[in-house]
This record gives sequence, C-alpha cells and structure tokens, in this order.
Amino acid sequence: MKEHIIQETPLAVPGFLASAVPAGLKKSGKDDLALIVAPSGAQVSVLFTQSQVVAAPVMVSREHAADQSASALIINAGNANACTGQVGTQAALDTCQALSAALGIESQEVLVASTGVIGVELPIAKIIDNLEPLIGSLCATPEALQQVANAIMTTDLVPKIAAMTVTVDNTIYTVTGIAKGSGMVAPNMATVICCVLTDAPLSKGAMAHLFADAIDESLNCMSVDGDTSTNDTAVLMSSGAGLYGHTIDESHTGFSALKAAITQVCIELARTIAKDGEGATKLIDVTVSGALTDEDARTVALTIANSPLVKTALFGNDANWGRVAAAAGRAGISYDQSKMAITIGGIEVCKAGTAVPFCEDQAFAALDRPEVEIHVDLGVGEGHALIWTCDLSYDYVKINGEYRS
Amino acid sequence: MKEHIIQETPLAVPGFLASAVPAGLKKSGKDDLALIVAPSGAQVSVLFTQSQVVAAPVMVSREHAADQSASALIINAGNANACTGQVGTQAALDTCQALSAALGIESQEVLVASTGVIGVELPIAKIIDNLEPLIGSLCATPEALQQVANAIMTTDLVPKIAAMTVTVDNTIYTVTGIAKGSGMVAPNMATVICCVLTDAPLSKGAMAHLFADAIDESLNCMSVDGDTSTNDTAVLMSSGAGLYGHTIDESHTGFSALKAAITQVCIELARTIAKDGEGATKLIDVTVSGALTDEDARTVALTIANSPLVKTALFGNDANWGRVAAAAGRAGISYDQSKMAITIGGIEVCKAGTAVPFCEDQAFAALDRPEVEIHVDLGVGEGHALIWTCDLSYDYVKINGEYRS
Repeated sequence: MKEHIIQETPLAVPGFLASAVPAGLKKSGKDDLALIVAPSGAQVSVLFTQSQVVAAPVMVSREHAADQSASALIINAGNANACTGQVGTQAALDTCQALSAALGIESQEVLVASTGVIGVELPIAKIIDNLEPLIGSLCATPEALQQVANAIMTTDLVPKIAAMTVTVDNTIYTVTGIAKGSGMVAPNMATVICCVLTDAPLSKGAMAHLFADAIDESLNCMSVDGDTSTNDTAVLMSSGAGLYGHTIDESHTGFSALKAAITQVCIELARTIAKDGEGATKLIDVTVSGALTDEDARTVALTIANSPLVKTALFGNDANWGRVAAAAGRAGISYDQSKMAITIGGIEVCKAGTAVPFCEDQAFAALDRPEVEIHVDLGVGEGHALIWTCDLSYDYVKINGEYRS
Repeated sequence: MKEHIIQETPLAVPGFLASAVPAGLKKSGKDDLALIVAPSGAQVSVLFTQSQVVAAPVMVSREHAADQSASALIINAGNANACTGQVGTQAALDTCQALSAALGIESQEVLVASTGVIGVELPIAKIIDNLEPLIGSLCATPEALQQVANAIMTTDLVPKIAAMTVTVDNTIYTVTGIAKGSGMVAPNMATVICCVLTDAPLSKGAMAHLFADAIDESLNCMSVDGDTSTNDTAVLMSSGAGLYGHTIDESHTGFSALKAAITQVCIELARTIAKDGEGATKLIDVTVSGALTDEDARTVALTIANSPLVKTALFGNDANWGRVAAAAGRAGISYDQSKMAITIGGIEVCKAGTAVPFCEDQAFAALDRPEVEIHVDLGVGEGHALIWTCDLSYDYVKINGEYRS
C-alpha cells in the first residue's frame, strides 16, 4: 500500500468486518446481499435521497440513523424495496430485527439499504434465510470489502472503491469508500449507495458536517441521466471513538486532513460512477467559470451535463458546441451571450459568443478519449462549478430499454 | 375539404402567397428557403424562445414584430444563424433588407426565422441570390404551403401541417398551421418554428392574447428532449383586417370559436412534433391529475416526460412504472406517495403507492403502439396537466451522435 495515495482497491479499516453472499435476488446468481459490521461505539452520519418518493429502507434507516449511532449496515441489490407500501416497510424492519437478533445488538443499530427494480415486493425470506451464511463469512480483510463492492452492483460494470490513509497526531487512519451507481444518477443525492468506512475517531458533530460537505463536493457534482432515485443512501461509519476512546472535532488541528481524505475518497467514487454511467464511453468534466455566483455556475453546468443533445454529440466525438451554448442558454440564469467562451477537449471553439475556426479531425481525436473536458466561461463574474457526467450512447438505450426483461 | 374538421394537409388562406426553393443550405439539395407573403395590412403576433442565448433572426424579428405588423416571413433551414455574433445579426438584417427591396415593402415588415446547426456563419449570398426565384414562384395554392412545410424540415421525418375552417357571422375563415421541430424540443417555447396563417380578421390585441394562450396549451405542453433551442419562433399571421376592413376582438361572440380553431391547429402541430421527435417510435401522452395545483401537475408531468429512464423503458415497451414514480418523486413538489396511482397504456400498475399485479405480455402489447398514455394521479387535489412527448430510442442517439458529420 502506498501511504496517503488514493487507490482503487479497498484497505481494511480497523474494527470493521464485511461479507457478501448470493441470496437469489439477482437473476445471475451472483452475490447480492452484503453486510458491514462495526465495533461497539461506532458512529455514523447518513445522507438520503431528496426525492419525495422514498424506498422503505430509506424510511427505516432515517429513523435508525437519527442518533448517529449504528453497528451494522445491510445492503441488498436486485430489488429497491421502493413503492412497496406497508409490506415493504415491514420487510425493511424485519431485516433489521432478524439481523440485530443474530448479532446481539439493538434493532435500531442496524441500517438497511436496497438497490434494484422499483415496485416489486422484496422477497424477504431470501434475505432472512441468508443471514446466517452472511454473518458466518464476516471478515476483516480487504477482500471482504471488495466482495461487498461487487455484491451491491446492479447495472454497474465495475465496482467502485476508493481508499487512502491519512496521518493525524502520528496515528495512521484509514478511509475506504465503496459505492454503486450507474443509472438513475443525478445530484440530490447522487442516486447511489455509498459507504465510507474509517477508523478516524471523529466526533458525531464533526462527522455530520464533514460528510455533508464531502458529498456536496462529490456525489452532488455528478449526473448520469438527471434521474434522482428513490433509494440514495450515503453512509459514513467511524469505528474510531470506540477503538481509541477519544474523538476529533472540527477544532482539532488534524481535522482538515481527515476531511480532505474523506472528501477525496468521495470524489474518486463520484468520478468512477460518472465514468461507469450506463452505456458511457467516456467521463465528461463540465466546468463553468465566470458566472455571477457559484450557484449560477452550477445551474449552467448541470444543464449542460444533463442535455441529451450534448451527451449524444460527445458520444459521436462531435465538437458541436452550439448545443453546449444552447443548453447554457436555457439554464434559467441571465447572462450576456456575447461574452461566452467555450472549449471542448481543450480546443477553443467559441469566443465572444461566436465560432472560433478549428480543425474537425483534431477535435474528433480530442473527444475520442476516455476523459473529456467541456469548459464554458460566461465572462461576467467569478462563479465556478464542476460537474462530472458521461455521454449518452446506444448502450444507455439498450440497457434501459431492456432493463426488467 | 371537410368543413370545420381538422386535417393534415394545408388549406389555402385568402390573401397569403407562399413558395420555397433550394438555396444550397441543406446538403441534400432539397428546398431550404421558404417565403410567406401576406397582403397589405396584415397583422401578426409572434412568440420567441425563452433561452438566454438567442439566434440573430430572433433578435431581428423581435424588433420587427414589435408593432404587430408584418407582410413577409422568410425561413431558412440548414443553418440556425445562432452564436454568429455581429456578422449573424447583419446577415439577418441584410436578408430583410434585400427581401423588402424586392417586394417593395419596408424592411421592418419582414420577419426572419432560421433553423439548423448553431455556430456556423449563415452563407448570406446563397439566400440573397435565391430571393428572385423564391419571389418568382410565390403562389396562393395549398401546394405552395405544403412546399414551405417541407422546406423548413431539418431532422423532421414528416412535415407538420394542420388546417381547419371556422364559421363566424356566416363567414368561413381558414386557419392553416405549419411547423417544424424534432430535436432540441422543450417548452418555453417548444423549440420549433411554427407559422399559423388565418384570414380571420382578429384585432392586434385579440391576436396577442389568443396566440399566447394557444401556444401555452400546445407547443408549451410538449417536450422531446428538454433541450430548449436558440431559435424558437411562433408566428400567427392574419390577413383579415386588410381583406375585410373590420376586426374581431375578444368581446365578439365569434371570438371563442376562432380561438378554439387556432388552438386546435396548434395542438395538432404540437402532437405531430412530439410524435416525430428525433428517433421516436411512439407519441406519449403524460397526464398528471390530483395535484394540488395545475402548476404542480405540469411540473410532475414534465419531469416524467423528460426522464431518460421513462423514455427508454417505453421504447422497450416495458411498463416499468417504478421509473415513473421515481421521476414524479424528484419533480420538486411535495406530496404523499401512498396516494399515488399510475396507469400505463390503460393498465393500472400502481395504486396507493404500491404495485398492482398485471400481465407483462398484455402490458407489452399495450405499449407496442404508436400512441401510449401514462396517467399519474397524485390523489391530493384537483390540479391537472397534459404533456406530449416521445420515447428515447437508438435512433435518437444515432441522429444526434452523427448530426453534423
């Protein structure tokens, strides 16, 4: 392991155990039920979807996370347990109840998250029946966390993992983040399940503020298709207070290093999700500068990032900047089009609101890459924003036209 | 002609002449320059895009239409003359100047509209050089209007025409609407060029109110991809005041019949545009009822209509109502998900927020049709809205991934 360098494989985090088993929720027969168990005294900060239609596990976990204390997180893929009414809520509660009984903890100490198809009853028996092997295979190794990352995938092509270490007061702390998300991905929150584990002994208050900020700079800056989900759940779990017997709050000199590490892990996860957006062939960084405010810049960047015309043009390696300009124009903020400048893939294509001649072959080559930047400067202020997204390809249509069948 | 029944072929409108020629703006060599000339005394009401990035012809026509008086409308396809700076504005002004000189009218009497690729200089010589044959082929026949409808098409597969007659005070008036629009189509305004001709002698004030309402109920209730364009222009032209020497205002007993006819023509055009959305295989009516307000209903309906996940599911004939519920949930309005009911293609799939069992084969068949209805009832009020959209197919990606090349 390279110290303090972010990596795409998990690091074991002191105090945490993990496991995953196939419970028959995925048709493929792959692992689809994952468990993370934290040591006694673990603390959490949890953020949920902003949607008005929320899944049963979100309702249940919201209550269980209210005291910022939790000892276990159980995640299933293959079924969202959303729009399942009272039966769905009961299934989420039953899951917590059965797991807590098996682990010898309070039911309120269990968080539950689900991802998959909406509106289909969760086959609760499959989950209950598999708790024993799930608990039986709990393990403190990086491999166990890797298994969790694989198990929570749905249409994801790659598992999302980011990990690094950070030193505070001569103690090396570990941060490992795991996430899933590929379609139905938009900010507020970015339609994913995301779990960040650390042994850094953050106080509850520090965790809550830190994590809200970290998610704002990462998952909330990413959009695959603008479709916010019913199940978004991001969990930060810390074993530190219990392990080390003291906590670090925002006034501690080491706090900013911890915050930076956790934020960097979340950013890496967000970029990986955008890059693995359903059908994506490339990651697109949309940067907007020169807006009157950061908020304006963000609004314009998101409108560009979610424009089907921009996304299909980029799939075709077409530097069709008129579509970028048109998307910016409909973002709902007021500005002077004669001051707008646009670069795509590093090539200046628009200046003072009008075309800059460029070589089409060169532009094609600049766009035919795994990562492409669109930069729009509005030329009226200092507001700045960066949004990660991906292109819109035939495969997005294929994946989503045939998802349930 | 069937009296007072809407039809998809144009009716000649007393007083109006029309023509179209190939000016070399479309690579195909097809007609791409169209002209409509109104008789002396003609009045107009014109609505433009709400985008902050507007094309040169929009800027020029806004000024020329300010007095609600115009005698000619020239439209080119193949080049949007947008993001073309001062050169573009001059090109639009030069077009008006040259046309007005040739027709012997004031330059301010000319409206100009463009559609096509953004950010490329308008080859003005091609337009000026073709004014003579364009004017020379002016004709009062329905065929001439049909030619105009064909000439303004870009990625449109079918010309958009709707026409009907209406009787007021024993006089039969004619309304013929022509439009184009296929991609970059969203409300505010619905990213199209739309021209409605009538000989009904509406007063200027009546025209303005009537047309704003008609467009609100038609083009502003339609979305193909949520991408508002830089060039939206909708023109209502009336030859009546000049022809008949009197006007009809809002207090006239016949006003509502005229308004209904013009609105119906605009609705027919809007539905045709949605149905011919880029790559569309079907027209989708999204109806939302039971919202607290019509505004709320409209917000939810638009969010559903613009959801890539909903649109791809419908392309796949998949009654994946969870995506409809998820889109409704992220629309930004507050409601009780336990009261939500959804039907897709007439099949009840969700009631009280949870699944209703249905036959997948029957649902597939119900969706495998040229027109499909999604109905969401929020169960909390009387608010209602209807939005027309289309599905999202491989061909949308193909058309827009390869548009410029």
